[in-house]
Amino acid sequence: MQPFVFHNPTQIVFGAGSVAKCGKVTARYGKKALLVFGRDSIRRTGLYEQVTGTLREAGISWIDHGGVKSNPVLSHVQQGVEKAKNRQVEVVLAVGGGSVLDEAKAIAAGACYDGDVWDFFSDQAVVKQALPLVTVLTLAATGSEMNSGGVVTNEATQQKFNIGSPHLFPKTSILDPELTYTVPPDYTAYSAVDAISHLLEGYFTSTDRATPLQDRFVEGLVKTIMECTEQILADPRHADARATVMWSATWALNGLSTAGIGLYGFPNHMIEHSLSALYDVPHGAGLSIVLPGWMRWQAEQAPAKLARFAREVLGCAAVSEQEAALWAADGLKAWFERIHSPVSLSQVKIPQQDIPAIAANAVMLAEKWHLKAYTAEVIETILRYCA
Amino acid sequence: MQPFVFHNPTQIVFGAGSVAKCGKVTARYGKKALLVFGRDSIRRTGLYEQVTGTLREAGISWIDHGGVKSNPVLSHVQQGVEKAKNRQVEVVLAVGGGSVLDEAKAIAAGACYDGDVWDFFSDQAVVKQALPLVTVLTLAATGSEMNSGGVVTNEATQQKFNIGSPHLFPKTSILDPELTYTVPPDYTAYSAVDAISHLLEGYFTSTDRATPLQDRFVEGLVKTIMECTEQILADPRHADARATVMWSATWALNGLSTAGIGLYGFPNHMIEHSLSALYDVPHGAGLSIVLPGWMRWQAEQAPAKLARFAREVLGCAAVSEQEAALWAADGLKAWFERIHSPVSLSQVKIPQQDIPAIAANAVMLAEKWHLKAYTAEVIETILRYCA
Repeated sequence: MQPFVFHNPTQIVFGAGSVAKCGKVTARYGKKALLVFGRDSIRRTGLYEQVTGTLREAGISWIDHGGVKSNPVLSHVQQGVEKAKNRQVEVVLAVGGGSVLDEAKAIAAGACYDGDVWDFFSDQAVVKQALPLVTVLTLAATGSEMNSGGVVTNEATQQKFNIGSPHLFPKTSILDPELTYTVPPDYTAYSAVDAISHLLEGYFTSTDRATPLQDRFVEGLVKTIMECTEQILADPRHADARATVMWSATWALNGLSTAGIGLYGFPNHMIEHSLSALYDVPHGAGLSIVLPGWMRWQAEQAPAKLARFAREVLGCAAVSEQEAALWAADGLKAWFERIHSPVSLSQVKIPQQDIPAIAANAVMLAEKWHLKAYTAEVIETILRYCA
Repeated sequence: MQPFVFHNPTQIVFGAGSVAKCGKVTARYGKKALLVFGRDSIRRTGLYEQVTGTLREAGISWIDHGGVKSNPVLSHVQQGVEKAKNRQVEVVLAVGGGSVLDEAKAIAAGACYDGDVWDFFSDQAVVKQALPLVTVLTLAATGSEMNSGGVVTNEATQQKFNIGSPHLFPKTSILDPELTYTVPPDYTAYSAVDAISHLLEGYFTSTDRATPLQDRFVEGLVKTIMECTEQILADPRHADARATVMWSATWALNGLSTAGIGLYGFPNHMIEHSLSALYDVPHGAGLSIVLPGWMRWQAEQAPAKLARFAREVLGCAAVSEQEAALWAADGLKAWFERIHSPVSLSQVKIPQQDIPAIAANAVMLAEKWHLKAYTAEVIETILRYCA
């Protein structure tokens, strides 16, 4: 085990019907809210009325900031920052999935900063303060509800970059599994892929091998997410499975699975961000293309942990380490196919000849994230496994 | 899964050598500290000099409050409260194991309260504020370093009672596994028993069965603690095993394993508190006597979860549920014997004829904790399994 600092101050209010507490919770942090949400789904489902009803009851006024895109874009973040600044907003309330939460974090930081909010993403500035953030989650996937990071795409430069700061932990996140009952099968699958990917990035890339606690934690989470996702796909209103996946996705990226494992990277996210930035592929769909390909490549580099995964999670019977490692890549790919998430670039109509351009884009993030092993050439090799 | 609120704001600073950061960390919360510690072991090991050296460097003055007993007593807490009040202490710094941390929490609360600190334990008052608390842990067992509870014994009334309040989360806990290298084999074993008991109380007593995430979390932790404790007993300076047990014990009682499982109880702790209160048995030793006996009793009441435990953690081959449940009780008892923790009242020289008196004492706590099923008669039955 390696040294670490762990601090996650987000309060979680979890349970069916908990969205009713939204106004009361938000009132702890301010009386004037910026209400951040996505396209029209929260209006269609009645959630907008429900949430604003609780705000009204709690005496909170709000300004709408709807229209957040999946893979949120900088220009829309900048509009939100302007609104927050001009209207003296005191608290940001995000109602949506990971994209909405990520954009809300960027707005919360940008509202307390004189320069351009992209400075935080391009490492030109550090977040020193932010408006308090409350979230109501509608999609269990990214873990943004209990972590301090966010990702935004700069359309002008085609960069999908991230920010992170202790100031960006949501103060309170309301996790109401009933809000996820209407998530369609494709996004249910992408969400599972995203949460599993979050867990496996650290699990596969850390070099410390004396982490039995963290390993079992990850293995238990992955098994649980796989099992419950299958239950949800069979019955979208499976209350326990929806609840368990929601809480599992939160655990998958709240710092617990990586505390003590030492250095690790997010190579799959690094490559996937280029797919999202260049082709606007849903993040989870991009990950289910990249991860099995990366695992095939990783099986040649460092098979031991993949072999452990094959045995502990996928029930692979004892074979050689190399065989088991390849088995892990193939087994996870097969499961992604089973839940109908794409597993090749061709399935989302990205032509093979684009691979060098994708790699060139990904290298920018590899540099930002100090993933030195990932040259354009290496990324191309991995992408060919994903073709 | 059941609704819950989870909020754990404690910052963890973890790693070999991290005790050096003590002064700097404490200085965030105040310039005048009450230094709470146990008998003489921190002086003997040089830890007292090390800690106070960092305080001096950080410009912090301190008042000693040493002599905390294992199973801390009210009279000593009251002395600490007086010191904190009279000397205008701004921050409490606890250096020790669970007993020291628990006493420090009681002092932190008592210092901000006009009445007698026992009022909090006897449910006559609620903690509304407390001095900030920093901890340096020297024994991985109770989880007090990352939770909001504490236990103190009132010598006059022979009650071992608890407090809990969000104000009692340590602000920062420094977890330096090197400080545990000198923990002797008996306390290493008791500590493992304590952490395992924390996990199993919720695991065995919650009635919600749709908690695969929490179940796997507990099973992974118990397996890890068992495995690493054996490594430590073979090699007390096993760095990775000491670190893993330290972090595991923290996870075992920081709210994670029980979030979402619904109602659950601490019947083993309830009974054990009477052993500690009446005979001053080390807490972990008391638990290793009570838990296998309680499990035998529980195997008759609700065998399903015990059977799962036998299969998932102890590797019990498929037999009937009833057999597997008894197997769980016997298997855990055998492991406690293997690590030389006592498994019967007679081993710690508590005579069988005391059982009614122990049960009469335990019933007080059963009432406080609303464990209605645990009448004196039931507790006697369980204690006879522990004889």
